[in-house]
Amino acid sequence: MLYVPFEPMKKIHADEGSPLHPKLGPYFRDGHRRVDYILEYSIQKPNSARRHSTIFGNDNFLRRLRRSLSTRNSKAPLQPKEDPEFAAQEHRADYHEDDKSNKRKEFEENLQEAGLELEWDEENHVPGVGFLKIHAPWDILCREAELMKLKMPTKKTYEIKQGSNLVEKIRLFIHKATAPLHPKVESNQQPGLKHLSHPFSREKEHLFDLSNKDKFFDSKTRSSIVHEVLKRTKCERDHYSMGITSLLANSIYMAAYPPHDGDINGMDRNDRRLLYEEWASYSVFYKYQPVGLIRKYFGEKVGLYFAWLGVYTQMLIPASIVGVIVFLYGCATVDSNIPSMEICDPRNDIIMCPLCDRACSYWKLVTACGTARASHLFDNEATVFFSIFMALWAVLFMEHWKRRQMRLNYTWDLTGFGEEEEEDHKDHNRAEYEIRVMEKTMRQDQSAPKEEKVKLTCIDRMPAYMTVVAMMAFMITLSFTMAFGVILYRISIKAALHMASAAGQSNIRATVKGTAAVINVVIIIILDEIYAKVARWLTILEVPKTDKSFDNRLIFKTFILKFVNAFTPIVYLAFFRGRLVGRPGKYLYVVGSYRMEECAHAGCLMELCIQLCITMLGKQFIQNNLFEIGIPKLKKMLQKRKMDPQEEEKQNKILPRHQKDHLLLPFAGLNPEYMEMIIQFGMVTLFVASFPLAPLFALLNNIIEIRLDAKKFVKELRRPVAAKAKNIGIWYNLLRGLSKVAVIVNAFVIAFTSDFIPRLVYQYTYSPDGTLHGFVNHTLSVFNVRDFEPNTQPIYPNHLGYNVETCRYKDYREPPWSSTPYELSKEFWSILAVRLAFVIVFQNVVMLMSDFVDWLIPDIPKDITLQIHKEKIHMMELFMKEEQGKRRAARDSRGLYNCNSPTSDGQSPPQPRSRPNTHARVGW
Amino acid sequence: MLYVPFEPMKKIHADEGSPLHPKLGPYFRDGHRRVDYILEYSIQKPNSARRHSTIFGNDNFLRRLRRSLSTRNSKAPLQPKEDPEFAAQEHRADYHEDDKSNKRKEFEENLQEAGLELEWDEENHVPGVGFLKIHAPWDILCREAELMKLKMPTKKTYEIKQGSNLVEKIRLFIHKATAPLHPKVESNQQPGLKHLSHPFSREKEHLFDLSNKDKFFDSKTRSSIVHEVLKRTKCERDHYSMGITSLLANSIYMAAYPPHDGDINGMDRNDRRLLYEEWASYSVFYKYQPVGLIRKYFGEKVGLYFAWLGVYTQMLIPASIVGVIVFLYGCATVDSNIPSMEICDPRNDIIMCPLCDRACSYWKLVTACGTARASHLFDNEATVFFSIFMALWAVLFMEHWKRRQMRLNYTWDLTGFGEEEEEDHKDHNRAEYEIRVMEKTMRQDQSAPKEEKVKLTCIDRMPAYMTVVAMMAFMITLSFTMAFGVILYRISIKAALHMASAAGQSNIRATVKGTAAVINVVIIIILDEIYAKVARWLTILEVPKTDKSFDNRLIFKTFILKFVNAFTPIVYLAFFRGRLVGRPGKYLYVVGSYRMEECAHAGCLMELCIQLCITMLGKQFIQNNLFEIGIPKLKKMLQKRKMDPQEEEKQNKILPRHQKDHLLLPFAGLNPEYMEMIIQFGMVTLFVASFPLAPLFALLNNIIEIRLDAKKFVKELRRPVAAKAKNIGIWYNLLRGLSKVAVIVNAFVIAFTSDFIPRLVYQYTYSPDGTLHGFVNHTLSVFNVRDFEPNTQPIYPNHLGYNVETCRYKDYREPPWSSTPYELSKEFWSILAVRLAFVIVFQNVVMLMSDFVDWLIPDIPKDITLQIHKEKIHMMELFMKEEQGKRRAARDSRGLYNCNSPTSDGQSPPQPRSRPNTHARVGW
Repeated sequence: MLYVPFEPMKKIHADEGSPLHPKLGPYFRDGHRRVDYILEYSIQKPNSARRHSTIFGNDNFLRRLRRSLSTRNSKAPLQPKEDPEFAAQEHRADYHEDDKSNKRKEFEENLQEAGLELEWDEENHVPGVGFLKIHAPWDILCREAELMKLKMPTKKTYEIKQGSNLVEKIRLFIHKATAPLHPKVESNQQPGLKHLSHPFSREKEHLFDLSNKDKFFDSKTRSSIVHEVLKRTKCERDHYSMGITSLLANSIYMAAYPPHDGDINGMDRNDRRLLYEEWASYSVFYKYQPVGLIRKYFGEKVGLYFAWLGVYTQMLIPASIVGVIVFLYGCATVDSNIPSMEICDPRNDIIMCPLCDRACSYWKLVTACGTARASHLFDNEATVFFSIFMALWAVLFMEHWKRRQMRLNYTWDLTGFGEEEEEDHKDHNRAEYEIRVMEKTMRQDQSAPKEEKVKLTCIDRMPAYMTVVAMMAFMITLSFTMAFGVILYRISIKAALHMASAAGQSNIRATVKGTAAVINVVIIIILDEIYAKVARWLTILEVPKTDKSFDNRLIFKTFILKFVNAFTPIVYLAFFRGRLVGRPGKYLYVVGSYRMEECAHAGCLMELCIQLCITMLGKQFIQNNLFEIGIPKLKKMLQKRKMDPQEEEKQNKILPRHQKDHLLLPFAGLNPEYMEMIIQFGMVTLFVASFPLAPLFALLNNIIEIRLDAKKFVKELRRPVAAKAKNIGIWYNLLRGLSKVAVIVNAFVIAFTSDFIPRLVYQYTYSPDGTLHGFVNHTLSVFNVRDFEPNTQPIYPNHLGYNVETCRYKDYREPPWSSTPYELSKEFWSILAVRLAFVIVFQNVVMLMSDFVDWLIPDIPKDITLQIHKEKIHMMELFMKEEQGKRRAARDSRGLYNCNSPTSDGQSPPQPRSRPNTHARVGW
Repeated sequence: MLYVPFEPMKKIHADEGSPLHPKLGPYFRDGHRRVDYILEYSIQKPNSARRHSTIFGNDNFLRRLRRSLSTRNSKAPLQPKEDPEFAAQEHRADYHEDDKSNKRKEFEENLQEAGLELEWDEENHVPGVGFLKIHAPWDILCREAELMKLKMPTKKTYEIKQGSNLVEKIRLFIHKATAPLHPKVESNQQPGLKHLSHPFSREKEHLFDLSNKDKFFDSKTRSSIVHEVLKRTKCERDHYSMGITSLLANSIYMAAYPPHDGDINGMDRNDRRLLYEEWASYSVFYKYQPVGLIRKYFGEKVGLYFAWLGVYTQMLIPASIVGVIVFLYGCATVDSNIPSMEICDPRNDIIMCPLCDRACSYWKLVTACGTARASHLFDNEATVFFSIFMALWAVLFMEHWKRRQMRLNYTWDLTGFGEEEEEDHKDHNRAEYEIRVMEKTMRQDQSAPKEEKVKLTCIDRMPAYMTVVAMMAFMITLSFTMAFGVILYRISIKAALHMASAAGQSNIRATVKGTAAVINVVIIIILDEIYAKVARWLTILEVPKTDKSFDNRLIFKTFILKFVNAFTPIVYLAFFRGRLVGRPGKYLYVVGSYRMEECAHAGCLMELCIQLCITMLGKQFIQNNLFEIGIPKLKKMLQKRKMDPQEEEKQNKILPRHQKDHLLLPFAGLNPEYMEMIIQFGMVTLFVASFPLAPLFALLNNIIEIRLDAKKFVKELRRPVAAKAKNIGIWYNLLRGLSKVAVIVNAFVIAFTSDFIPRLVYQYTYSPDGTLHGFVNHTLSVFNVRDFEPNTQPIYPNHLGYNVETCRYKDYREPPWSSTPYELSKEFWSILAVRLAFVIVFQNVVMLMSDFVDWLIPDIPKDITLQIHKEKIHMMELFMKEEQGKRRAARDSRGLYNCNSPTSDGQSPPQPRSRPNTHARVGW
């Protein structure tokens, strides 16, 4: 623990030591001091750096700042995405290197003043990039841990009681039975024992086990401590106080990240390698995730994401089983389903009205037999049960997650850690915001200098807001237009088909449906990528003040756009298609002479189902496999072609840690991962009434997704700074909102898209024998062919071989012989009333049940409540004993009680003699 | 600060000092040490106490415990309600005094061991009661404050910035304009400055302003500290560890409470007197409440209740204004309302069908003119607007409260205080539970001794649960029966009326309605009182483990019972009355020959309104004025007759504080107060569509209620132990739940109880000229008198003077000449569909709007977020400077950096010389 004096000019060069240093881990050249953080900066040959030497004015400085920002794709504040080399080259031309290095110098001086130890590495295998390695010595770690109120395990352990005897036995049995599913990650703690935690404090040092000081703070904690110091340190040059965020935004530093612990395939056993073997591998797909280890290595926020993904995937298992059963039930009952039997029975010689004007002719209902049978698979009583089940499943999932989260909070010692503190971490102003404020200050300085602190007001942001609103509206319209385009494609192709011969119609019709769905998916995926970019751009335009605000605005925009994009065609199919078609002789037309699409005879549910299926499969296949697996593989192959594999191997061996990390991609936040999952959750819950296999598809996707994300985190990304989090934040609210909307959407799908309600009403009101016999006839209204408007009659009225006088169409309307022909009939209104009543009942009953389940299941598991309580009592006992020890010691030594009277300023440490006694009494 | 040695036998008698001691405040006899807590116990003459001297066995001991519990009405755990003298007398006969006083002795020894100072007062003006006065000396206060992590103001202040300049100016202007509304309570803090708070720690003593140690901890904090010590202290006699809860439950102590600060009309200026003058007085009804002072005196929990009540009352002002406007709109438009004009027009000679069999005859619609006009007052378009308004009002109220709560949390330094800690205060086991566990242990000891800790399982509680379910079911049925009884009363009186002459019918009908409503109210109030008692009894039966669980179970039961009780008649009127009446010639009958009640012609809304009005007024008038003001007044008058007023005056002067407090009633918790308000909130929101004046009534009631409750707290109750709370807990959830239910209920009231939807449908679909002309005719179906069943025709068919062939009735049914006579018509179904659609749209739109408002308004006011953030930065700065000071000092003195290296165990205090510098640097 040496104090490294400030020597910015006399930088020690990396190559001074042996290039094949045995310690290639993240250490200083002395091989002892651990590298806790790495800052990258660009270096130049001195001759080229000295080209310009004029000092730029303030305006110029700002212009440069802004330019550097605009060329920068600022995904994560601390880790700019673009290639540092590229950016460095770009800026080299016009940027004043001296200014940069002066700023760096000042900043580094300040870091050393704050107690951090630094080491520079400029001559290395990465041309043009210098590395600043930062090490936090023990006293700094202690001080910061105290300031950050980090909870650390004390020496005192206590037993975790796991409920009553029977429960405990069952738990143990389950644990043993599922042993092969647990990852082989040995934890430091003995089972059933937990260390009592206490916020670290140098005054209470005796509580903690400081025997191995190198291990007391793990690498994650060390780097987050350094991160904290970095955030606080300012560089006061040019009258503008610049923090690390501004320095990074300004390309004074290129990147900042903590180093990985070691190689995934090296000799030494490290956490990263363990994670790679036991977690980030497809071969362990059936195992639980080592969430504790993930948290230990990546921090709570990443740990929570993977824990959440795990819980979600786990919860999808029962949902997919029930979904498959529901589907199988549909398959099994398809032959005993009376309506489809009636449709398929050739004896019921029902003549249907033409589906379009002139070109189409009358047709027989029996030709719709196939779709009727297929649509029973997804439109039966089991579907209603399944959508209620899924609504409750969503609530159970949420509850289960809340409990799991609480359990993790307890295990990870976050129970005392307040929400406010969490938020605080993100409350630092963004660099872009600071620059805008600077600009404004300058403008105001020129006009009228004010004392007040300058802020960006609504007026400043108005142009940005206007752009945002306009762009959002434009993009939503774009989605609608795209969906409408696909509809037009379908309609026009169909119209063309009707014109052509009737032969092979059904084949071609299936082709049209299929291609339309595929086109839809492709459009969705392309727009998704565009929307993600546009949302980010719009959010940057708004110049949000803090990272938190940035995240929230970005998530909000992305969510709306992606949702509209993914669900517009589905919503159209579910609720609009086939609603506004008019009636024979009075069809509705759009865009000139195109008729609105009608559903197949048995309802739109079937088509909705196909669309959902193709969207889910397509999105998952293309986005995951192609984008996330395929493209990186391709890139690697291209890279490999350039580089000799042996060369690479050698490189790998001699490169020190920080240079290896430099080659990895920067960490871009968890938001895209969450967003993908939320959209999937929407697919699984929103239209589950029409597609019971959705959970199964989601499950299969997620099993891959977990390992894919794991690989990305372990292998391909730089290590993220460990962020603390008690919960998954805004995502939980989005999930909750979605599951509420899902109840309403499912209610409408069952009531309006499926034929469930008409069947029910027929069976209990109109049916003569209480069965569905005659239902098909009941749903068909009668049309007299003489009532066709001129020029809408079929050209070939004798297509069926005989003259048709009346035809049938699917609607509830008065017959031609009533006093009000073709008006909506009483049946229509009564069935509509029942449908609406069903929606009200379904929505409120399911919501009530959800609230009841929510209320029934305590958010905090009972054993955790007990443990937390126990922990507090233990803590209290510990301190009471200590207090008594102090009191006794004080009484012995002074014979007085006022241990803290004003005269005895500060607390005198207990006599060295009495201390062991205290410990003994405390019970260690 | 003297140490009082343990002298239980040599008790100092109160009368040793002068009886007219100048310090009648809560002080020890020395006049210096403050009494922070009072324990009461019963004393006896030694001769009577020595009567029984056998040592009772365990079983006996338990029997006594149980008896003492069952006779005890345990409202608040620490403050048994019943008169101590009475209880003392009852127990004296069979209770072993020696045992009691031994337990007391041990407990008091333990208290002294914990550092508290005690003083006994046995010879006083209250016969049979001994007082144990407890004083916490400075070192104990410090120790406990540190353990409890109490946030105390430090010496450092900072400026509170109140938003931008304009906002600040507006705020100041409003503040000035409302100056007369602010209570005259000077706060210690300068305006615009706030002390930085920090958890008290003896090691950080230099941060706090300890110049006046007597004032540093205020009386509320002192007593809660003593309360904390009391809770922790156990008495280990009889092998059963008994805490203060058990000791109180066991009548070893009679009561435990902190003393009041002083008299409300004494010479000295104290907080209690200030509260009495500026808060607990009807003359200041128009002023804001001094919430800060309430919190300072009674603690956060009580403070939050009154703050909440204040916000609620304040929010009722706009609601009542809008309500009055809506009502006035109804009054103003009554003459231009087409349907009532049509009804009242004698030219529309509409003959209505008889309303009952045989006895009634045909009648003319024009006779219903009065009710039709009256019902327009509450059934017009403005009502729909008003119920949407009130739904949003409820959300705004909730949001406003959340923000206010956050602001109070900030002002009261509760922001860091976690939820878990709050809960912890209530996690102590209840005495009743402990006793039951003891019993169970003993039974198990006799059969098979086990190592495990004994718990009460579901099986133990099964009989209690069965009783609870049965009793709850019984009481809910009772409420239904009562409501049904009132209905039968109305029906039978009406039937009797029809038999009698038609003259004066309308008068008598009004009388029936009025008396029925009054009977209803009386029943509701009586049942309310009974239900409160039963709910308590049932909860005691269940033996909940903790006070928190007890409270929750009690609140849950009371809420359900009171709600069912208050709303059964209203729900009946709104949704069931007049629905199931059948049609002329085919009426429905209940209980033999009683017909179901029909509504008056213009709908049931009018009657619903009367019922609501009478219930609200009656409940508030009788419960508040009679029970809460009248009865205590009466009691006082009776007491006064016994006692000479001069005697009382004299008594008042010589009695020391603790004996005065003894005469007050114990504090029974806030739950009844909250419950009353929640029921009122239900009245205001649930059926607001039918009674727009409800908010006004509630407002008037609450203005009285606030001062009434204030008087109770200040004058009539013993001081409660200050409880910390960040929020109003379960009550917030109940409010939220109610406001959600209100949306649905109002949707149904508008759709089904009012004629809003039929009018709308008529106007836009059936009306020939787009107005409501002809609406009345449209709502009436035609009945052919020949279709009367035998024996149901009117006896006097020529009552109107001529023969009637067809009559009309209010329903949508097919006319007699249709193919399906008297079936429900198409109009019925279409209007039903529209009604249901309205419910869906209303519910979802209002819920969406509520969620949107909820999302739009941040829960934490922006300035508070900034302040909290700023406070943290100030804190951090403070400590960083201190750290730098330390570092520098350490460097100076040692020339080394490792201030906390393992060799230097413990932290050496900074050099005395360097400390003032540190302070100066920190910026004091």
